Amino acid sequence: MPYVKIELTREGVTREQKQTLIKGVTDLITNTLNKDPHLTHVVINEVELDDWGYAGEQVSVLREKGITADKK
Amino acid sequence: MPYVKIELTREGVTREQKQTLIKGVTDLITNTLNKDPHLTHVVINEVELDDWGYAGEQVSVLREKGITADKK
Amino acid sequence: MPYVKIELTREGVTREQKQTLIKGVTDLITNTLNKDPHLTHVVINEVELDDWGYAGEQVSVLREKGITADKK
Amino acid sequence: MPYVKIELTREGVTREQKQTLIKGVTDLITNTLNKDPHLTHVVINEVELDDWGYAGEQVSVLREKGITADKK
Amino acid sequence: MPYVKIELTREGVTREQKQTLIKGVTDLITNTLNKDPHLTHVVINEVELDDWGYAGEQVSVLREKGITADKK
Amino acid sequence: MPYVKIELTREGVTREQKQTLIKGVTDLITNTLNKDPHLTHVVINEVELDDWGYAGEQVSVLREKGITADKK
Repeated sequence: MPYVKIELTREGVTREQKQTLIKGVTDLITNTLNKDPHLTHVVINEVELDDWGYAGEQVSVLREKGITADKK
Repeated sequence: MPYVKIELTREGVTREQKQTLIKGVTDLITNTLNKDPHLTHVVINEVELDDWGYAGEQVSVLREKGITADKK
Repeated sequence: MPYVKIELTREGVTREQKQTLIKGVTDLITNTLNKDPHLTHVVINEVELDDWGYAGEQVSVLREKGITADKK
Repeated sequence: MPYVKIELTREGVTREQKQTLIKGVTDLITNTLNKDPHLTHVVINEVELDDWGYAGEQVSVLREKGITADKK
Repeated sequence: MPYVKIELTREGVTREQKQTLIKGVTDLITNTLNKDPHLTHVVINEVELDDWGYAGEQVSVLREKGITADKK
Repeated sequence: MPYVKIELTREGVTREQKQTLIKGVTDLITNTLNKDPHLTHVVINEVELDDWGYAGEQVSVLREKGITADKK
């Protein structure tokens, strides 16, 4: 009985990327734990940049300063 | 000190249905555990259909295929 | 696709009370929203009294002072 | 590795108030637990008044009755 | 800034399986969204079988009846 | 109506530190948003080191390598 919540900053994640995340997490759990995928639910929660704080600052402020979360 | 989170797909739940859920859960906890209802908070979170995955597929895709969550 | 999380202080909730909560919440959602119960998951999380704060105080401290959460 | 979720009713919280909450919680954790703030994430979730229930009633209904959550 | 919570029934998940889930989810998010993995946190929550309800029944009861969550 | 969840790795947080966190968060919300503290609940969730992943690795593994979360 797995339930997965994915929280992300709202920064242009597409419908296709969401589907990739949902499929990928479900397959990972099915393959790792041998769970019936019909018992796996995945919920994505996109969070506004004013509402996510990192190291004490709003992500909206970090983005204004040019600081991204991109992989280097 | 109970706190309850109810997550649902956003599919036309009315204000009255939300009130029924809030009242029903609060009464259930009050009656089962003898808790003061003034210490019980219930939060409903409606989730977009693109953001909920079931068995590896977005619910929006399942609905397009005519697959519902209705009781049979 | 409902998912429900119930958070309670750990104060002797029995297995039967948990079953009553699970059955009651599932029936409430099934009846109110006409949802297939096979898509409803309920998770109970019991929280230690040191880990729940109310009005700025640990519940363990409130209990030591004789303050309960019982219905009056 | 701290993660903090703050859930509030959506009642006109400003961007500056959110920044105050994020900074305050991060500093509190840094100072209390000696944690690197770069490992602390804070997420604020504003909840519609129809979606928050207190003592079995929607907060939207409580507000219509003139009942507030203000400090006395 | 992703945060992922994975909730599972406590049924003998090993340390290695947890590591596989953590690595797999982090890689999936990194590759799909191009996110710096140093900003991705994954939290696993194992839930006792008495505390997880499915279709109105405790999973502990379902297991006693021989009903599993295994992939068919 | 605020509810706050604080998730931390389980690494020797004392009862007094928990009380400091609960009092500090409650005061912060009361002062910033003018909320009645009797409507503020804070829940602390300590997570085992095998169950928290950072940058794709279990915190238990990071600690074995001598990598801490301490403020520098």
